[in-house]
Amino acid sequence: MSGEKISVGFLGLGIMGEACARNLLKSGLFSAVHVWNRSPDKASALVSEGALLGSSPADVVSKCSITFAMLGDPDAALQVVFGENGVLQAISAGKGYIDMSTVDEQTSQRIHAAITSKGGRFLEAPVSGSKKPAIDGQLIILAAGDESLYKEAEPAFTKMGKKWMHLGETGAGARMKLVVNMAMGTMLNALSEAMALSDKAGLKQQDVLDVMGIGALASPLVAMKGPAMMSKNYAPAFPLKHQQKDMRLALALGDQLGQSLPVAAAANEQFKVARARGHGDEDIAAVYEATKP
Amino acid sequence: MSGEKISVGFLGLGIMGEACARNLLKSGLFSAVHVWNRSPDKASALVSEGALLGSSPADVVSKCSITFAMLGDPDAALQVVFGENGVLQAISAGKGYIDMSTVDEQTSQRIHAAITSKGGRFLEAPVSGSKKPAIDGQLIILAAGDESLYKEAEPAFTKMGKKWMHLGETGAGARMKLVVNMAMGTMLNALSEAMALSDKAGLKQQDVLDVMGIGALASPLVAMKGPAMMSKNYAPAFPLKHQQKDMRLALALGDQLGQSLPVAAAANEQFKVARARGHGDEDIAAVYEATKP
Amino acid sequence: MSGEKISVGFLGLGIMGEACARNLLKSGLFSAVHVWNRSPDKASALVSEGALLGSSPADVVSKCSITFAMLGDPDAALQVVFGENGVLQAISAGKGYIDMSTVDEQTSQRIHAAITSKGGRFLEAPVSGSKKPAIDGQLIILAAGDESLYKEAEPAFTKMGKKWMHLGETGAGARMKLVVNMAMGTMLNALSEAMALSDKAGLKQQDVLDVMGIGALASPLVAMKGPAMMSKNYAPAFPLKHQQKDMRLALALGDQLGQSLPVAAAANEQFKVARARGHGDEDIAAVYEATKP
Amino acid sequence: MSGEKISVGFLGLGIMGEACARNLLKSGLFSAVHVWNRSPDKASALVSEGALLGSSPADVVSKCSITFAMLGDPDAALQVVFGENGVLQAISAGKGYIDMSTVDEQTSQRIHAAITSKGGRFLEAPVSGSKKPAIDGQLIILAAGDESLYKEAEPAFTKMGKKWMHLGETGAGARMKLVVNMAMGTMLNALSEAMALSDKAGLKQQDVLDVMGIGALASPLVAMKGPAMMSKNYAPAFPLKHQQKDMRLALALGDQLGQSLPVAAAANEQFKVARARGHGDEDIAAVYEATKP
Repeated sequence: MSGEKISVGFLGLGIMGEACARNLLKSGLFSAVHVWNRSPDKASALVSEGALLGSSPADVVSKCSITFAMLGDPDAALQVVFGENGVLQAISAGKGYIDMSTVDEQTSQRIHAAITSKGGRFLEAPVSGSKKPAIDGQLIILAAGDESLYKEAEPAFTKMGKKWMHLGETGAGARMKLVVNMAMGTMLNALSEAMALSDKAGLKQQDVLDVMGIGALASPLVAMKGPAMMSKNYAPAFPLKHQQKDMRLALALGDQLGQSLPVAAAANEQFKVARARGHGDEDIAAVYEATKP
Repeated sequence: MSGEKISVGFLGLGIMGEACARNLLKSGLFSAVHVWNRSPDKASALVSEGALLGSSPADVVSKCSITFAMLGDPDAALQVVFGENGVLQAISAGKGYIDMSTVDEQTSQRIHAAITSKGGRFLEAPVSGSKKPAIDGQLIILAAGDESLYKEAEPAFTKMGKKWMHLGETGAGARMKLVVNMAMGTMLNALSEAMALSDKAGLKQQDVLDVMGIGALASPLVAMKGPAMMSKNYAPAFPLKHQQKDMRLALALGDQLGQSLPVAAAANEQFKVARARGHGDEDIAAVYEATKP
Repeated sequence: MSGEKISVGFLGLGIMGEACARNLLKSGLFSAVHVWNRSPDKASALVSEGALLGSSPADVVSKCSITFAMLGDPDAALQVVFGENGVLQAISAGKGYIDMSTVDEQTSQRIHAAITSKGGRFLEAPVSGSKKPAIDGQLIILAAGDESLYKEAEPAFTKMGKKWMHLGETGAGARMKLVVNMAMGTMLNALSEAMALSDKAGLKQQDVLDVMGIGALASPLVAMKGPAMMSKNYAPAFPLKHQQKDMRLALALGDQLGQSLPVAAAANEQFKVARARGHGDEDIAAVYEATKP
Repeated sequence: MSGEKISVGFLGLGIMGEACARNLLKSGLFSAVHVWNRSPDKASALVSEGALLGSSPADVVSKCSITFAMLGDPDAALQVVFGENGVLQAISAGKGYIDMSTVDEQTSQRIHAAITSKGGRFLEAPVSGSKKPAIDGQLIILAAGDESLYKEAEPAFTKMGKKWMHLGETGAGARMKLVVNMAMGTMLNALSEAMALSDKAGLKQQDVLDVMGIGALASPLVAMKGPAMMSKNYAPAFPLKHQQKDMRLALALGDQLGQSLPVAAAANEQFKVARARGHGDEDIAAVYEATKP
């Protein structure tokens, strides 16, 4: 990546995708940043800041050395690649495609197989972190797949993340993301049930958070989500329905591998209750609502 | 507590009790430190360091202004107070009794009622933390009950803890302890299941801990117990059977208060599996063993 | 019990107690049936039918060869024995006391010890069945304890139950009751979740019950509680809060014996949700309400 | 189906498929019974009894008016239809295809769409029951889809089942099967945990089964599987791994429809433990093994 600047693409401009694309744009590292979103209006802010609007995933890929994508679910990730005017129609030898969506491994493997069958290079790179880390370029990027592409993409990773790792062959990133998000989902329920029980038990929730904050349980998760539960501030940093999806995928992975996960399974059911009560588009902290009768 | 030094007592010299008593002894703040343990041989190290061995709880209380206790379970806590030559037989107006054991609220209230009926002052003060924080005088002390006694005991708390709080009337400390330990038990299972799933999924467990360590889940718990699970180093900082007892008591509190706690209930069952497999006397990290077939 | 008729007593005239006492009264087997209830007005119907109202548990016991009791919970069972003018003050050599309440084993053992210390004979005899079987004299009686008393009480059992068994020493009846009620609670949740899922899945709930009714799952429980869930007919045959109490006691027994019971633990949490939503005094079928968001 | 006899086909000769095909063969209702299995040696017994061995699914379909199939999982069900020389290559206007496999609805819908696109008629007809009912022609057949095909297949259903129902459009049969099997899986765990707890509690397991057998819980499931657990007789009537698959699919259905199913989720984890301990090919009663440490 020394010498000439390359052009990069970004497909999928949701909350986090837009923030990542903006960080690439602001970096000045690239000759151009081409963007695309299914609803083109979501691209307007970036375009006003200098991004170039592509007409389709294929259009973006055709103009870029490396194209990043961050889509909301496996179906969307597949559609962008295999759909009409999708990535597949423009990917070719030398070009790189980096999917930062959180998808199940099977989806990742299908995309891997398709991209490489056209001579392209593929890297999966799901991220850990939510809205604010995305904006601040402080995501954790869990890459797996083509190592040469990983090396070439590192300058871009430095603008989007605070830490990036290469975990192995395609699939390892997807699996790592699920494992960590599963742990997060269970821990969030640990916090949520503690908040609910303390309230019933006549304790001050702030005292509970103070005690946790000076002991073994102190973590950014507790520090951020505890106050959110207290104030019912559920503005979505990471939408609950996506967390529930990750729990489901992690449990499916456990099922496939013969690993019993009873505590995560119970946590998943609480996310489902919260979702059924209409909190799916709110922040994961809204799982607290599932503790109420 | 200004002016003259007072003498203090310590009942119960298990792993943590002994460490606390030693910190009081080493502080030089007290004219004498009287100790007692059901098996007197456990007191010999402290006695060789300058502590005075009491013949019974009543004997210790009779010689001290303030007596601390740290017993293994509610039955032991009750026995020390109500049993033959127990605390009750020597407590009197002006004397203070501070029970640092983790007990259910009912037990705490029974002790409170008995002590105050004799004119004594009572403070419950369960602690958060395990062997090493106890040794280092870095416990978190969750006090509730008589406020004048709390004030007088603060110099002692500075030697045993890094943080002490007065949470309200008798019972609040017991409840806070249970709430926080319940959260810890669930979070530990979150970590344990993540470690198990990652191993099955072909990921390096160290990578999982690295990813957690730089993200929202980073906590002393993850930092300490993750490596313990990897290396199966289950030397007891906090014995698993005591953690399981706290889960049971927290669930009983939820039951009494009408609070459903399905994730903690699932976590409790995993601690029970680990206990049934013979890990009750090992560290709480051994709950990882329950993830194995 | 041949030859002369004896007089019998009955303490506790809730829904089921009253039905049992009436069956004893109607049998004509006894020279008199003495009854007592904490709220004496509940005894008025029986008295109008020929029962004699005692002024206290002790009063009843003093007048009877065998006294039966059916109380709502362990506290009530203890109070009737150990309280003022309780059973203990009148029990004596030769007299029999048969506690048909569902209590934990510890409670049963305490009563056993107290009764026998006065020379009395004790039998625990918790029952399986609810309002209608009680009325119809079709309960299942799970006795344990004094075998001579069991033999003498058999004529009474024939009027209250369709089946009676002697299971061993005191405590075995309490344990059997808990084991079977725990299974019932889990099975009821199996039905409840099936009803909820089928409704969401566009199936007719009646079709689901028809399919169950002709297959391996066909049981009186499904036949009775399925339609109750469909019609939200929650008139209490067995109050949900008592079922939840039994789940709690069964889980506590498992905890004590080191037996992990994860499915019953999850079922218990659903009963707690239903209780917290105000269905505690309704029938156990109301656990179906816990499946709703 | 009046007048002339028709020929029928049967694809998939596992334990249950073979039994069903044999019942069709023995009935004498059909001019011929064509069979096919991936491993042709499994067809030899039937062939010796008069069945005709087809070379492929397409070969069987080409020779039959109605073809039945009973495959082990969704992948196998799809492979038989869409694979090389599969059903699709021979199905045509007027011909009927009846899939009796237990598959998820999506699979059923894909097969439905493919069959009807070729002019064929499709009926899904998953069954409830295991080895012995299959042999005895006592299955419960839950059909959904083409009603004319249902009518024509009824004579065949009379030979394989004791009860058959038409539940609605394609997908309803799959969903009903999952709902009922999910309930069965949870109920089996209720029994399993009761057996485990009673054993620990010093009760005779036979007494527990006797008590259940005369009360609200009496069911063929308890009557069959309770003794199997006692004697560890796990000869597969219904393999545990298939039950676990159904639990997984039912939970996935609940997830999709926003229905929380915490008790079934806990039950599923126990089936996973049993599977991981090597009991996947044994009978569902082997879930009892998961209750052991």
